[in-house]
Amino acid sequence: MALIVQKYGGTSVKDVDRIQNVARRVKSFVDQGNQVVVVVSARGGVTNELVDRAKEINPHPAEREMDMLLACGEQETIALTAMALHAIGQPAVSRLGYQAGFVTDKEHTRARIIDITGGDIKERLALGEVVIVAGFQGQNTEGEITTLGRGGSDLSAVALAAGLKADLCQIFTDVEGVYTADPRVVPNARKINEISYEEMLELASMGSKVMQARSVEFAQKHGVIFEVRSSFNDQPGTIVKAEVPSMEDVVVSGVALDKNQAKITVSDLPDKPGTAALVFQALGAANVIVDMIVQNVGRGGAANLTFTVAKDDIHRAVGTVEKALENYSGVKVNYTGDIAKLSVVGVGMRSHAGVAATLFDILAKHSVNIQMISTSEIRISVAIDLDNAVKAAQAVHDGFHLDQLA
Amino acid sequence: MALIVQKYGGTSVKDVDRIQNVARRVKSFVDQGNQVVVVVSARGGVTNELVDRAKEINPHPAEREMDMLLACGEQETIALTAMALHAIGQPAVSRLGYQAGFVTDKEHTRARIIDITGGDIKERLALGEVVIVAGFQGQNTEGEITTLGRGGSDLSAVALAAGLKADLCQIFTDVEGVYTADPRVVPNARKINEISYEEMLELASMGSKVMQARSVEFAQKHGVIFEVRSSFNDQPGTIVKAEVPSMEDVVVSGVALDKNQAKITVSDLPDKPGTAALVFQALGAANVIVDMIVQNVGRGGAANLTFTVAKDDIHRAVGTVEKALENYSGVKVNYTGDIAKLSVVGVGMRSHAGVAATLFDILAKHSVNIQMISTSEIRISVAIDLDNAVKAAQAVHDGFHLDQLA
Repeated sequence: MALIVQKYGGTSVKDVDRIQNVARRVKSFVDQGNQVVVVVSARGGVTNELVDRAKEINPHPAEREMDMLLACGEQETIALTAMALHAIGQPAVSRLGYQAGFVTDKEHTRARIIDITGGDIKERLALGEVVIVAGFQGQNTEGEITTLGRGGSDLSAVALAAGLKADLCQIFTDVEGVYTADPRVVPNARKINEISYEEMLELASMGSKVMQARSVEFAQKHGVIFEVRSSFNDQPGTIVKAEVPSMEDVVVSGVALDKNQAKITVSDLPDKPGTAALVFQALGAANVIVDMIVQNVGRGGAANLTFTVAKDDIHRAVGTVEKALENYSGVKVNYTGDIAKLSVVGVGMRSHAGVAATLFDILAKHSVNIQMISTSEIRISVAIDLDNAVKAAQAVHDGFHLDQLA
Repeated sequence: MALIVQKYGGTSVKDVDRIQNVARRVKSFVDQGNQVVVVVSARGGVTNELVDRAKEINPHPAEREMDMLLACGEQETIALTAMALHAIGQPAVSRLGYQAGFVTDKEHTRARIIDITGGDIKERLALGEVVIVAGFQGQNTEGEITTLGRGGSDLSAVALAAGLKADLCQIFTDVEGVYTADPRVVPNARKINEISYEEMLELASMGSKVMQARSVEFAQKHGVIFEVRSSFNDQPGTIVKAEVPSMEDVVVSGVALDKNQAKITVSDLPDKPGTAALVFQALGAANVIVDMIVQNVGRGGAANLTFTVAKDDIHRAVGTVEKALENYSGVKVNYTGDIAKLSVVGVGMRSHAGVAATLFDILAKHSVNIQMISTSEIRISVAIDLDNAVKAAQAVHDGFHLDQLA
């Protein structure tokens, strides 16, 4: 008998039919002899509806009250899911975040979990009940409702699995697992059976939408093995776990493409200490996240500084840079929104040389110009023209033979 | 400086506009130097929507899960109301039932309040904040969310006023107060300025829809003076409080008409002890509430038993009675759904004789036949033909000069 924590996201509990599907799936795991704890999100669309109503009343709603408001979404789903289980003869009980012992800090709308007691979950499981827990929400030490921010329900599930020392954590979602590339971009992309936390983190931060990095980090820190799989079929998904030696046999595990990038170039910047810091401090203060950065010395000893930001931030970023540098005459700020970032990720890079050379060779053969490069221990990213993005991703996927099982 | 508890029902917080109206009204009371605690219901229609969704999933949803589900409705409203107050510069904070210290028994969907601590409401008021409390909900001693059943938000407000020792409790609703009669039936009906708990209770149980009897009973028991008034204008409403001697100057305070009655007659019942008990025990077991009862002896020593029930219960009631009496041959069960109950209510009846005589005289002059009579210390009710109901109500209202201020 295994203790399994299952998480179902908003699309999986969107309406009555889908909630009934979730109930049947949960029951099938119970019938196989498992104890099951279910973490659910708000029904798809409900959170946005609540946010819209709030903004209509107050364009800048207090974060504490936003948490009070948004916590309703999951509360509705846990009650309906319990009723759906009862309807098919499966004893079940719902639990709000605070009832399941989610203790958080006081940062409303983006609270961090500081403890999970689990409440009476183990007792209820021992009685043969399924326990359905509201994801995304907790309570701070002052008794106020808090929410965990984006991807909060995944985090709830992983954290609960850690707190309960569950045997397995399953993240049911609308994709079948983690792929070697986005199948909409690379049609012969393949589902990965096993992947390390590090690779999953690199893919998450490279724009792969499967899971937020914080949930993966939490799982890694607490050694929670989890599976990402589809809530619409019975196929096994992708197991995410600590790196094992055999994983290094695969040099590159996946290709990620982020088409939502913009590039800013500041030219003829005086090449003296502190000017780059000036630019990035101003961007940090304006809450603009900078991704890749390249600096080189141009004509006459002046420096050129190039960096990428999310496309949505481009105008705010350019304005911030221009203001920060208004006392430097002759400095020019140019930008383009037509940039993509292509990354190859794999723990095998640690032990295999030549991955960068292979990547650059593939891109050159397909006439894709590399504008910027950045690397981590298990990742190489290049900034390229948006027009070349799809062609490049397909070529790199093929070039590293990612369509073939290792 | 007064401490006021204000309650706004579902129609008063139905949409964004109305929530903003409520916020402006609340702020005006604060600006006059009062401390204000606001109790709100779910937005109009939300509770029914949730119930419908639940029944679609499970025709017999567990009451515990219904409470979990329905409590969402008020949670949404408190957050939105707090945001609306913030938007007009009024500090405010929302509180769920359990955060406001509503402790109830374990009867899900119809819990009774066993204690109200108020939580930190007094501290927050002292900081200049408005505290917005979710009506209708509490928590039992096992930490489970409970709801108070029909009229629960009124009860929350009255109970909170008692717990906080508030100076005044205001029930804002979609009527302007308590009237001498339903203005849709009696056009010259007049708003009553002051009424006693007893009269309010008699009117509530006579089908006047202003408030559920349990809230009035709670107010009476704990000496909470409350005002029923409109949330759509600034007119004073009706103050409900303990009887004072001057109230007895008014012999009749109001006329109530209940058109939702049906009459059942059981004839030729053996006139021996226990047969009436048999009938009413069976009806009680079938959850049919019996209102007026008349028994008399008919032909040949057999008894006739006549009683009224709510029109919705008529078929269930007749079936139950027929089954209970199936071993008594010759008994006949007849019924009619075309009955109305007209009541006159007033604490003045205690000290004024002749009210019944006046009532019967008025009805006789208007050719209205009286089918049954029942009385309490401060009420006389008669069952009449439904066809005569409106005419009779107008005649009685005029006959007791209720259109004129006492």
